Amino acid sequence: MEKLGLLYEGKAKKIYATNDPEIVWVEYKDSATAFNGEKKATITGKGRLNNTITCLLFDMLQKQGITTHLVEKLSDTEQLVKRVSIIPLEVVVRNIAAGSLSKRLGIEEGVELPFPIVELYYKNDDLGDPIINEDHIRLLELATDEQVKELKEKAIGINEVLLPYFDDKHVRLIDFKLEFGLTSEGTVLLADEISPDTCRLWDKDTNEKLDKDVFRRDLGNLTDAYEQILKRLGGAQHV
Amino acid sequence: MEKLGLLYEGKAKKIYATNDPEIVWVEYKDSATAFNGEKKATITGKGRLNNTITCLLFDMLQKQGITTHLVEKLSDTEQLVKRVSIIPLEVVVRNIAAGSLSKRLGIEEGVELPFPIVELYYKNDDLGDPIINEDHIRLLELATDEQVKELKEKAIGINEVLLPYFDDKHVRLIDFKLEFGLTSEGTVLLADEISPDTCRLWDKDTNEKLDKDVFRRDLGNLTDAYEQILKRLGGAQHV
Repeated sequence: MEKLGLLYEGKAKKIYATNDPEIVWVEYKDSATAFNGEKKATITGKGRLNNTITCLLFDMLQKQGITTHLVEKLSDTEQLVKRVSIIPLEVVVRNIAAGSLSKRLGIEEGVELPFPIVELYYKNDDLGDPIINEDHIRLLELATDEQVKELKEKAIGINEVLLPYFDDKHVRLIDFKLEFGLTSEGTVLLADEISPDTCRLWDKDTNEKLDKDVFRRDLGNLTDAYEQILKRLGGAQHV
Repeated sequence: MEKLGLLYEGKAKKIYATNDPEIVWVEYKDSATAFNGEKKATITGKGRLNNTITCLLFDMLQKQGITTHLVEKLSDTEQLVKRVSIIPLEVVVRNIAAGSLSKRLGIEEGVELPFPIVELYYKNDDLGDPIINEDHIRLLELATDEQVKELKEKAIGINEVLLPYFDDKHVRLIDFKLEFGLTSEGTVLLADEISPDTCRLWDKDTNEKLDKDVFRRDLGNLTDAYEQILKRLGGAQHV
């Protein structure tokens, strides 16, 4: 596979074309951003950790029958993925109250929810990724009603795989954000990443935060936390 | 009907018990508030205008088969209504982009929407009446799934009556907020008010704002605008 020109640079990744029009080359960057880009830092090792954790989780999900865009891990910071058109929705699943849910509904952080809840956000930096409902999605033609139903069902299905998986690794899966893409044939695939950047992950005993809240809330060393997650997931620990 | 003790005082109304346990006495106040109570004023005549406009619109809706809590208008500022337990949801219907929809989705104010959209807000001053989705409603047990479906259908049905009604009066119904209540038998009734406090109403030719945005955005004399609405709806003009 040949790496060609840069197609897109986001906050955390660069996407390059390849000689296969159906496949793109993803490079995870060492940059950390929060609060819609207002807080920024370069954190050496973050790209490697998120790339490795995402490949590990997507591989595991594929084995559980969940179709993802992942083709293969190329290196510490690179992976090949199927070229998809990203549906501009962030699908958030929550098992425990935290972050914006706690603020929105006045539920204390850490309270277990009686069932997982799904929220949809419009992936739009200029607007600050606002929460939206299905009428808004229809209005902006971000996805069809059938696609929205499929995204929500897939998100709940992925939660059902991830919850016991993380629990087994002594990690509480508080909440996470998913993105999906459409192939040229219109198939919906899990895309983007699943990493401590896109999940809230707490230690099962101590509730120590092992995710991006360490950066958002200045709680300590980010790579130590992400490395801890990688180690528990059985990935090679960096020494 | 005898007016008994004060049951509740809100930002715009006082509710009194009566000698009929199924009926309460509502008094509209002359207070104006916006931005979750941050901006406040006393505006003489506002209580009379909103009470009169609400009675007129609820009467009209009742004749169109939409059940409301209204029993009868008592005076300029007072009405009797059925005692209901208010469902803590604000049901917003939008025909034209304005206000928070414009901000949320980046759609310029005044753009006609291809179809009416419905939004649900959690009626909770401490939380600033946040927008919520149906999973949040289920989580907080604010209403059953069936009730939410009924509220949304009723809101769309009310819009279908109000749109041509206002259009005939040379007024564009931009958007409006509804509240619903449950009777002791569990029937859902339209409750609260429909007035320039709870609707965006623009002149059909000039797009002059004839609603609470006059207060929110300091656009001129509020009672002149509300009086204009009352006059167009055929209510007695105050002289």
